[in-house]
Amino acid sequence: MNFKSIFVCLAATLINGFCLAQTNQTAVVEDFKTSSTTQSGKQYPQVNSEGRVRTSILAPQALKVQIDIGAVKYDLIKDEKGVWTGESAPQDEGFHYYQLNIDGASVPDPGSLYFYGASRWGSGIEVPAKDQDFYALKDVPHGKISQNLYFSKITNSQRRCFVYTPPDYDKNTSTRYPVLYLQHGMGEDETGWNVQGKANLILDNLIAEKKAIPMIIVMDKGYATKPNQTPPQAGGAPAGGSGGFSAFEEVMINEIIPMIDTNYRTKADREHRAMAGLSMGANQTIQITMNNLDKFSYIGGFSGTSNFPSVAELDPATFSNGKFKDGEALNKQIKLFWLGLGTKEPNPFPGSVGAFRAMLEKAGIKYVFYQSTGTAHEWLTWRRDLFQFVPLLFK
Amino acid sequence: MNFKSIFVCLAATLINGFCLAQTNQTAVVEDFKTSSTTQSGKQYPQVNSEGRVRTSILAPQALKVQIDIGAVKYDLIKDEKGVWTGESAPQDEGFHYYQLNIDGASVPDPGSLYFYGASRWGSGIEVPAKDQDFYALKDVPHGKISQNLYFSKITNSQRRCFVYTPPDYDKNTSTRYPVLYLQHGMGEDETGWNVQGKANLILDNLIAEKKAIPMIIVMDKGYATKPNQTPPQAGGAPAGGSGGFSAFEEVMINEIIPMIDTNYRTKADREHRAMAGLSMGANQTIQITMNNLDKFSYIGGFSGTSNFPSVAELDPATFSNGKFKDGEALNKQIKLFWLGLGTKEPNPFPGSVGAFRAMLEKAGIKYVFYQSTGTAHEWLTWRRDLFQFVPLLFK
Repeated sequence: MNFKSIFVCLAATLINGFCLAQTNQTAVVEDFKTSSTTQSGKQYPQVNSEGRVRTSILAPQALKVQIDIGAVKYDLIKDEKGVWTGESAPQDEGFHYYQLNIDGASVPDPGSLYFYGASRWGSGIEVPAKDQDFYALKDVPHGKISQNLYFSKITNSQRRCFVYTPPDYDKNTSTRYPVLYLQHGMGEDETGWNVQGKANLILDNLIAEKKAIPMIIVMDKGYATKPNQTPPQAGGAPAGGSGGFSAFEEVMINEIIPMIDTNYRTKADREHRAMAGLSMGANQTIQITMNNLDKFSYIGGFSGTSNFPSVAELDPATFSNGKFKDGEALNKQIKLFWLGLGTKEPNPFPGSVGAFRAMLEKAGIKYVFYQSTGTAHEWLTWRRDLFQFVPLLFK
Repeated sequence: MNFKSIFVCLAATLINGFCLAQTNQTAVVEDFKTSSTTQSGKQYPQVNSEGRVRTSILAPQALKVQIDIGAVKYDLIKDEKGVWTGESAPQDEGFHYYQLNIDGASVPDPGSLYFYGASRWGSGIEVPAKDQDFYALKDVPHGKISQNLYFSKITNSQRRCFVYTPPDYDKNTSTRYPVLYLQHGMGEDETGWNVQGKANLILDNLIAEKKAIPMIIVMDKGYATKPNQTPPQAGGAPAGGSGGFSAFEEVMINEIIPMIDTNYRTKADREHRAMAGLSMGANQTIQITMNNLDKFSYIGGFSGTSNFPSVAELDPATFSNGKFKDGEALNKQIKLFWLGLGTKEPNPFPGSVGAFRAMLEKAGIKYVFYQSTGTAHEWLTWRRDLFQFVPLLFK
C-alpha cells in the first residue's frame, strides 16, 4: 500500500467509519487513460495497465458511491469538492458490463457509452487486450451494417435485424455471398455482435488480409414467442428486451432466412449457410442446425452447448432424440462443428461443454475445440471465437 | 391539490423541510403508461395524458432524488422501502432529454433508453403527440439504415455516416435515386436523425402513401476539424462527441458527397441533391448550399439560419458577402428554400429566423415558412419539418 492508498484509506475510514475496498489492494499503477468505451469528451471512466477501472463522479450530498463490476463493489472516495473517485481491482482483458451505486441506487456511469447486456441498457468498459489488433478499427475497406425492420407474422410483432455486408457487396452487384447467422447470449440482443462484439471490424480485417471469404452476417434477436405465449412487453421499441424464445427456431427458418435470401444476394443453400452463437445463442445454434441440416452445414457454439446447464454424461443414442448418434453420417453432412470456451469460464460451462464434447467423441463426430486463454464468459472470448471460426467457413 | 398530492407534499416537507415541486401542481391524472423510450421490461419512466413524466428508483440511502427535465428539477418522494417516485409538470408533446439527480450526482435514468444529445449519451423520454401516426412504426415496406465507416483524409480521422435507402432500393437494382443530406444540431451527432428523429419511419410512411419520391438520406456528423485545429478528443470511438466544425464544409463537399455518389446509386447532380438540417445543422445547410449552388438545389433550415445568434436586421447587399442579393437569379437556381420554426422556440430563434426571413423578402427570394404548433427547440418540431419538407423534394 503506497502513501496515496494509505491516505485514501484513512479518508475513507474517516468518512465511512471503515475502509472497505482499499485494504486488500496493492499499489495502483498511475497510468490510467480513457477507454474506447468512454464517452467522447468525458474524462472518466479510465483504465490502467493493470486493467483497473477508475471512475469519478460529482455527488456532493452522497454518503456512499461505488463502482460495481465483475460482481464486486468497490468504494469511491470523496474529495473536498464532493467529487468521488476510485478504482476496481484489475479486470480481465476485454469488455465488461458495470454500473455505479449511489446511496443504494444502481445507475449507469454518466461517463461511459451504453450497451445492451444483463437485460438492460447500461455501462460497459473496454480493458485493452494484448491481441486487440484483430478487432481494431483500421483504414481498410469497411463493410456496412444495415438495420432491417420487418414484421413477423409468427410472433405478431415488429422485429429488427442487423446485417453485415462485406466491403465489395455494393460494387460486385452480380456476386452472391454465403451467409453466417450469428446470435447473441441471454440478456443481450441484436445489437450485441455489431457493437460490443465488433463483428464488423473482425470481418473487415480478416477480409482485408484475405483470411476470410467475403460473407454476409445476419444478427437478429434470439427472443421470439407466439402472441399467446407471453404478455406484451413494456416499451414497444423493437430494440432491446429479453423474453422467451420458444418460437425462435420457427422465426429463423420460416421468416428470417427467407427474408435474407429475398433481400440480399445470398448463396441460398446449405453449403453456403452457417450458424453460430454465444452462450444461449450457442444452445440455439446447435438445436436449430441439428434440426435443419438440410439448411446448414457449418455450426459454431461459443461458450455454450445444447445440454446446458447439465454437466451429466450424455449418451449419443438418446441425447436430443438420438440426433447425434450416427457420427459417420453427420461427419459427411457437417463441414465444421466448432466449440469454444474461455479458460476462466465459471460453472457450469466447463462441465456442460465438457460433457457435450465427450458425447461428440463417443459418437465419433469430428469437431474443433478452441480455448480462449485468460477470459471468462465475456465478449473477448466470443470475439476471439469469431476471429478463429470465420476463416474456416465456406472453403 | 388532491389528497395524494397533499400527502406527498406533507411527506416531502417532513423529509426535506419544505415542499418544493408539488406546491404549484394541480391534481395529477393517474393514467401513466410506460413510454416508447422506456427500456423493454422496465416499469419506469412513464408518461400520463397530461404529458407528465414519472419515474421511480430504489435508492434507500439517498437524501434527495430529482428528475431534471426541461431545465427544471422535480423532487421524487421516498417510500418506506427506499423507492423514490415522482413526476414532472406536464411537458410538451414529443421527445425530451432528461436526467436524474441523486444526492447531487447527475446520472441517466436506469429505466430509459439512451440517446446522444446535450453533448452526452443520456436519458430521453417520448411524450406521445396527437400527430404521432406520421412517425409510427407501421407494417409498411421499410427502408434500411446502413452504418458506413470511412477514413477522412481532411480530418485524419475515422468517421461514421448513416444512410437511409428506400424500401425498393435493393430490388430495383438499376434505379438511381436523389439524395437528401440531413444534419443534426449542436450537441447531437449522426445518430440523432435515425434514432430520436425517426427519419427512416417518416420516409417509410411517406413513401408507402406515395407522398414522397423514394430517396436516399445521408446523416453524417456535423463536426469536423483539421488535425492542427483541435486537440484529439477523449475516447476515440467514431460515435458521439461534439467538437468544432471549421472543416465540415470541406468534408461534406470533398469527401462525403463523392463517397455517397461512389457507393450508392445516386442521381449525382444538383437537381437531385438536397440538404437540410436542424439548428446548427440549419446554419451549416444554408452556408454550404449557398456556397455550392452548383451542387444543391433544395435547401431546408429547421429552427436555424446562418445569421444565428444575431437578431439584427440583415442587408442582402452585404450579409454573407452578398450571396443573397440577387433574388431573381437565386429563384431560378433554388427549387425550394424552406425555413421552419416551432411556435414555442426560445430566444434567439424567433428573432434570428425572423431577421433572416425579412432579409430573404427584401431580396425577393421565394421561400416556404413552416410553423410547428406547440413545440419548442426539440425533436417533434424537426420530425414535423421533415414530414412537411420531404414531399416537396425532387418534383
